Amino acid sequence: MQSRNIFENLSPLDHRYWLSNESLFTKLSYYLSEDGAVRYCARAELALICAHCAMRGIDIAPYKTQLDSLVDELDVDAVYREEEKTKHNIRALVNVLQKLIPESLAPLVHLGATSVDILDTAFSCRIRDAVQNVVLPLLAELVESISTLALREADTPQIGRTHGQHAVPITFGFALAEYVSRLGKTLERIDIASKNLRGKLAGATGSYNALSMLYKEPERIEALYLEQLGLLPSEHATQLVEPEYLLHVLLEINCAFGIIANLADDFRNLQRTEIDEIREGFAKTQVGSSTMPQKRNPWNSEHVKSLWKTFAPRVTTFFMDQISEHQRDLTNSASQRFIAEYIAGFCAACNRMLSVINSLAVNREKMFENIKVSGGAVLAEPSYILIADSGNPEAHELVRRITLEMEERHCSFEEALETHPDIKEILHKQLEKLGYEPRSFFANPANYNGRASQKAQTIARKYLDIAEKYKSKEVK
Amino acid sequence: MQSRNIFENLSPLDHRYWLSNESLFTKLSYYLSEDGAVRYCARAELALICAHCAMRGIDIAPYKTQLDSLVDELDVDAVYREEEKTKHNIRALVNVLQKLIPESLAPLVHLGATSVDILDTAFSCRIRDAVQNVVLPLLAELVESISTLALREADTPQIGRTHGQHAVPITFGFALAEYVSRLGKTLERIDIASKNLRGKLAGATGSYNALSMLYKEPERIEALYLEQLGLLPSEHATQLVEPEYLLHVLLEINCAFGIIANLADDFRNLQRTEIDEIREGFAKTQVGSSTMPQKRNPWNSEHVKSLWKTFAPRVTTFFMDQISEHQRDLTNSASQRFIAEYIAGFCAACNRMLSVINSLAVNREKMFENIKVSGGAVLAEPSYILIADSGNPEAHELVRRITLEMEERHCSFEEALETHPDIKEILHKQLEKLGYEPRSFFANPANYNGRASQKAQTIARKYLDIAEKYKSKEVK
Amino acid sequence: MQSRNIFENLSPLDHRYWLSNESLFTKLSYYLSEDGAVRYCARAELALICAHCAMRGIDIAPYKTQLDSLVDELDVDAVYREEEKTKHNIRALVNVLQKLIPESLAPLVHLGATSVDILDTAFSCRIRDAVQNVVLPLLAELVESISTLALREADTPQIGRTHGQHAVPITFGFALAEYVSRLGKTLERIDIASKNLRGKLAGATGSYNALSMLYKEPERIEALYLEQLGLLPSEHATQLVEPEYLLHVLLEINCAFGIIANLADDFRNLQRTEIDEIREGFAKTQVGSSTMPQKRNPWNSEHVKSLWKTFAPRVTTFFMDQISEHQRDLTNSASQRFIAEYIAGFCAACNRMLSVINSLAVNREKMFENIKVSGGAVLAEPSYILIADSGNPEAHELVRRITLEMEERHCSFEEALETHPDIKEILHKQLEKLGYEPRSFFANPANYNGRASQKAQTIARKYLDIAEKYKSKEVK
Amino acid sequence: MQSRNIFENLSPLDHRYWLSNESLFTKLSYYLSEDGAVRYCARAELALICAHCAMRGIDIAPYKTQLDSLVDELDVDAVYREEEKTKHNIRALVNVLQKLIPESLAPLVHLGATSVDILDTAFSCRIRDAVQNVVLPLLAELVESISTLALREADTPQIGRTHGQHAVPITFGFALAEYVSRLGKTLERIDIASKNLRGKLAGATGSYNALSMLYKEPERIEALYLEQLGLLPSEHATQLVEPEYLLHVLLEINCAFGIIANLADDFRNLQRTEIDEIREGFAKTQVGSSTMPQKRNPWNSEHVKSLWKTFAPRVTTFFMDQISEHQRDLTNSASQRFIAEYIAGFCAACNRMLSVINSLAVNREKMFENIKVSGGAVLAEPSYILIADSGNPEAHELVRRITLEMEERHCSFEEALETHPDIKEILHKQLEKLGYEPRSFFANPANYNGRASQKAQTIARKYLDIAEKYKSKEVK
Repeated sequence: MQSRNIFENLSPLDHRYWLSNESLFTKLSYYLSEDGAVRYCARAELALICAHCAMRGIDIAPYKTQLDSLVDELDVDAVYREEEKTKHNIRALVNVLQKLIPESLAPLVHLGATSVDILDTAFSCRIRDAVQNVVLPLLAELVESISTLALREADTPQIGRTHGQHAVPITFGFALAEYVSRLGKTLERIDIASKNLRGKLAGATGSYNALSMLYKEPERIEALYLEQLGLLPSEHATQLVEPEYLLHVLLEINCAFGIIANLADDFRNLQRTEIDEIREGFAKTQVGSSTMPQKRNPWNSEHVKSLWKTFAPRVTTFFMDQISEHQRDLTNSASQRFIAEYIAGFCAACNRMLSVINSLAVNREKMFENIKVSGGAVLAEPSYILIADSGNPEAHELVRRITLEMEERHCSFEEALETHPDIKEILHKQLEKLGYEPRSFFANPANYNGRASQKAQTIARKYLDIAEKYKSKEVK
Repeated sequence: MQSRNIFENLSPLDHRYWLSNESLFTKLSYYLSEDGAVRYCARAELALICAHCAMRGIDIAPYKTQLDSLVDELDVDAVYREEEKTKHNIRALVNVLQKLIPESLAPLVHLGATSVDILDTAFSCRIRDAVQNVVLPLLAELVESISTLALREADTPQIGRTHGQHAVPITFGFALAEYVSRLGKTLERIDIASKNLRGKLAGATGSYNALSMLYKEPERIEALYLEQLGLLPSEHATQLVEPEYLLHVLLEINCAFGIIANLADDFRNLQRTEIDEIREGFAKTQVGSSTMPQKRNPWNSEHVKSLWKTFAPRVTTFFMDQISEHQRDLTNSASQRFIAEYIAGFCAACNRMLSVINSLAVNREKMFENIKVSGGAVLAEPSYILIADSGNPEAHELVRRITLEMEERHCSFEEALETHPDIKEILHKQLEKLGYEPRSFFANPANYNGRASQKAQTIARKYLDIAEKYKSKEVK
Repeated sequence: MQSRNIFENLSPLDHRYWLSNESLFTKLSYYLSEDGAVRYCARAELALICAHCAMRGIDIAPYKTQLDSLVDELDVDAVYREEEKTKHNIRALVNVLQKLIPESLAPLVHLGATSVDILDTAFSCRIRDAVQNVVLPLLAELVESISTLALREADTPQIGRTHGQHAVPITFGFALAEYVSRLGKTLERIDIASKNLRGKLAGATGSYNALSMLYKEPERIEALYLEQLGLLPSEHATQLVEPEYLLHVLLEINCAFGIIANLADDFRNLQRTEIDEIREGFAKTQVGSSTMPQKRNPWNSEHVKSLWKTFAPRVTTFFMDQISEHQRDLTNSASQRFIAEYIAGFCAACNRMLSVINSLAVNREKMFENIKVSGGAVLAEPSYILIADSGNPEAHELVRRITLEMEERHCSFEEALETHPDIKEILHKQLEKLGYEPRSFFANPANYNGRASQKAQTIARKYLDIAEKYKSKEVK
Repeated sequence: MQSRNIFENLSPLDHRYWLSNESLFTKLSYYLSEDGAVRYCARAELALICAHCAMRGIDIAPYKTQLDSLVDELDVDAVYREEEKTKHNIRALVNVLQKLIPESLAPLVHLGATSVDILDTAFSCRIRDAVQNVVLPLLAELVESISTLALREADTPQIGRTHGQHAVPITFGFALAEYVSRLGKTLERIDIASKNLRGKLAGATGSYNALSMLYKEPERIEALYLEQLGLLPSEHATQLVEPEYLLHVLLEINCAFGIIANLADDFRNLQRTEIDEIREGFAKTQVGSSTMPQKRNPWNSEHVKSLWKTFAPRVTTFFMDQISEHQRDLTNSASQRFIAEYIAGFCAACNRMLSVINSLAVNREKMFENIKVSGGAVLAEPSYILIADSGNPEAHELVRRITLEMEERHCSFEEALETHPDIKEILHKQLEKLGYEPRSFFANPANYNGRASQKAQTIARKYLDIAEKYKSKEVK
């Protein structure tokens, strides 16, 4: 067994980010490391033996205990030492297994299979299990956390911002509900895509040549083999399972990644000194800057964005891997191995975002103050609507000019309105018709927030239920 | 109306590729050009007027004819001239429309809507219609063509190739069926994704602020508005419809693009001088090379691959557009406009591939000869399987050595076998048990092709049916 | 001549962005359109005739006038009509040229050349000329504009921001000088790379086979041919000029693109309602939002960022085009044509940024106010430095605690200091030693800005000179 | 010290590819691992102390030995444990260093520096040293190997291929010389770019605020600090060194990566069963396929291509990292760490390609045979040239028809010529004029290879010299 000081590793995933995601990465390692890869291949080889036995009417029961313990007891180093000779990883595994298997079953090891029948099948299992047992529960926890926060802040007034500028008021819970809704939808999509990963036992070119020498109905042993691993056969394999099953899993994850990055970006901006509406949790002993002792940097949100910049462009590689010449070339060998990294990178981003949400300080006072900053200019919209609805086609232009006056005179919208008594009158009339008290309406622009609160609540509740379903998956 | 010699255009799509896809691009232009964009926005504005009428109990019937003709009659140039003043495209359209609309309805134009309520909704309609009326029928035609060819060539022996090297025999129809299966699946996925594009009428920040000043149940008018355009509302809009609905359409198209590129690559390689198994149709007067008169280059397949290289990496932009700060920033404005190019690029690739398939010359003789090139070494696999199945754990190594002998002695597999009478005997016995005549088996390696033919037929038939469904969509 | 209403074009470059960059795009079209492509190829063919004449001692003088007028008079449509027959663009051009050339020279047309000898050479010329005559002068104008602004604002105090948070004061001119320095450097790099574009006359495989049948020293005619077009020969061509010459031009442009995008992002953020330090020029009649009349959106900066998102990821295609099998495959045919789009996209971004800079409103009052927002916490840094320099190893921690106190007590740094007389005393002593008046130092945090102003001036002046050099290139 | 079984690591770089590049990756780890990162930061901190001493006239000599040993002796784990408290990596290092430094120098530790003054400077050093001491020597070795092979095979006839089809003959050495020339040029470019990496000591916002409190000429201490580390100061830093210095190093490496991938692709294709012109070295005990014992797959070339697919698209991230808001945001923190991976990936590809070249089996017989496959059609080109040069404007069409006849009659070019005595006569006459013996010319198409051999030799010799220069760098 070759061990190494982790600080000598080359990938940040294997030193710095391992340390900051220790329990998470240990779980992922079970599926995504080389150790996991070899063991899952062994598992597939054993499933093949069982499938052969079923086809041949051999009773597997007496060997069951021995076979079951094989995967965990397998010496992965021994496989690697064998590979140095064969220069072929599956042949190496087969050679090692053949010595561990009950003698009477040894001839069945790998019989009729091409390496990729094992490799691609095992890979589908590994990704499916990593997604089902680690990615989805983690993502569900994140959705749950944002939902809970959205519920709590459903009524907290906040200014809505478009183009980085004040638009009209919303609530903070409504802003969060956007991410609940977008991220929540990815749960089901990732789930479906991961369960649709496929295996194969169709031989070197996908046409069951070898198996046809052994059985009349080669598709039957394929089905038996895959059933034990919980997979369906691919529709038309070449040497490889068609790449699109896996591609869809990765694309759905990348969609989720983009949503999380968007949330991180919003959080970065809401922490700007001038905005100051939220703050990441900050330990008492924590240092923001080595020279500027006052700094409280949104470094966790920045980190999430940076992870997205690192990993999201890797989809280009995933799409490149759709192309394999004829019945396969090997140019996806290395690239496919790095999918392990991609998933780890996504999980690290989820994990960090989770910690941000769970320790987020919401500055409700500042949110409320910020709405007032523009002196009620946010009420330009309802004023325009009300005037337009009264039948005045110049409504937009009229109100636009009032906002220009506000700027020139440095006064509030209400004050500017005073010099336009006709407009003011229309507005008051319209407001009264709608059941608003005009003065109170202009005094409390924060109340002009439409369906923000209701929407926040409906969405948060819906996805709390959905997230619950995926969280409960965390069994392993 | 500003016209321009197309050879002065900057984009290859608007000169060279327009000429080679004239009827196709004219169809696309209806949806994807600026002219299409403005008209679809006008259509959305009219739907909004109708929705207001419905909410207010105004009878729209008397105006129906006038409104219906408006979209086609609209002077797009006039809108552009107005935009020079307003610097705002939707405000420009609104100003122009207000003059064309029956006076009594004029105050309802754009009432309660923010620009993006129109723009994003119209964009969803345009993409959906372009996909439904152009992309899917074209892609279905391609799937149909490949399927038909796969059926015709279901029994044509061809060597299967892995790593660019001879593996075991398949049939050419089987090789094509791979693309039928992969590409066929994208039809339904693109269909579903395009029908799931959404619209919105939720205002500047998605929280229905403005509409809440007009109606108690703003979601109702949103539903009425979108219903007329055949859309559902997005679950949680900000100023924008959530980007993932559109993203999924583009990703599914990019999956299809990769599959077509893979097919093009295979076709390029099968046209290599030394392989020469297929040829693209070649006009009598066509010039392959300006100096090498003998050349018949696979330039159409190369062109398809090149289009893929041009357009597939643009998914990075699509993923970048997931990020919009707070309730929206405008950094997706230009990037989203180029989606028109992306779809045109994909259609150009489909169109070219279609012409390749429809005029493909299949060189069955050469396919058959190529199988024999390796002197029966392709039978190493079944030999190994049969020996292994006889209980010999050294089977792989034994056969591997025989193939090394073949190489050293420059002899055929059958000849090399002669010096290994024990192995030969096992093989013959096993073959007889399976019902094969051993000499004929070794003499006809092309017959060793498993389930290639059956699989080709099953898959081709399945997707001929599916393609039929999407082809029939071409109504417009 | 085929003309089309520009609103029917598919590419936004050929309708919307053409309209907003009319004079710029017309210039680019001269080099980058299909019309330009054909004419530059004709120019290369004529250079080849002249080179043959020089090799053969034929006096070209009598034909000079006729040849010179040929390029401009060429009927590009005729070439296209011919291509419909030949399906080969250069053979089509050759056929057309042969009829226009003095009869005695006709046999020399294209003699010994392969198509790509013309195409790649002409492409290098087109890109070089577009870069030299359009891209560089435009970029130089942008550098000049930013430099001028940086000089003007060299002393305008602004808060420096890291992590979106207030760090220590700088000046606005210093912030701009960053972009002057970064963008200024790209001028020379793009210039050098574009002048290093190469041509070739090395035949179908780069080994001068054909030319060797005509001349003993084929490299001599290659040199003569290219000399007339102002190019050097590539070092080792295949059928293609090696892709790296062009790749470097594109990468340098993409570096400049990223810098401009960064500037646009900063400008977007400085226009946030809460920050409000700058504003894009805004026409009196302009509409910011169709419903929120008060809006003044930073839409030009957003547009620039969006163009970057659209075009920057296309480098992936440029890198893919490095790979061409053996002596060439044609999979770069379409992709290379879209380089025209890329350059147009970059120019559009420069042009827009230029208009932003030239009409930028700088809100010096707000910049000054913003510095004061954090109550002097920006002086935590110099305080820590001065205490540390007095020999106290706990300096950082001491000052960090004072800033925490500021927060708790909602007081200024100076006030918080009052409860730490020992620290205050050290600070005052240290400041006096440095020649500062302590009270004034704490009262004017904006003055704590190091070398910001000097640096802004030095850099702005340096690049004003450099930009001058490239601007003067605009001759054509 | 935390150790881990390498098979539990998540990145393939830290298990599988480490094992296959053990000595190479151990070297890289010295610079690129976390251990290397911390030590280089320590080195920078010590350089800062020395610079302060120089500014203050403190004699550093007595402490020299102690300081020099500090970097190697530093307990990296202790720094990490400290970071758990501070949540700030540089503050953690500073705290640890302060205890190890001679007491009288302790107050100078980190004095006046912001974290990034250390981090970015150390990062520039690490990348420069990794490039100078590992990347360049390795790449030079690869260039040398290809050059040596090109020289050896300078006269080996091979068919030139365009569009995957036979074009005209070249030599194998000429084909290799393409890569010598392209890859050779990257050596100098990478060298220059890596030596142009910069450091900084300009403080939190790049404006020397803090240092200005300590020294009148802060640029002087910056120069002293960087001089010790062999770096120049950046021209205009913000908190960060401007990203373009580093970006250029990475882009040049990516150019080299693309060239190597192209070579790998050519090698993959030349190993196709039907072409069979080269073979990767193959160990006697090696297994090509687990079921097809005859297979000799070009798996090393495939691996190189796959590494390119994995790493080349990461340039998108590098370009994204050009954008940092205002005086910096932290969104490049994680992404920049993964540059270590990128460099390791590139080195792995070089290393593998090197082993391919060094054990390449060249099948000269097959190369020669392949030329003859097309029955002399490769002589269509010189025939056309000679006829054209005789003044016949129909030359191309005449010869094109002869090649069509060849195809129909399944005869050689020479045979087809027999039915065109007039053309044959012209050809013979022209050939004789050029000093060729006509019959021998047609009998030996392989001789029609222009300047292939000379060019191969010139280029190989030139770059052998250049590579020598960079190889000798391997000192460390």
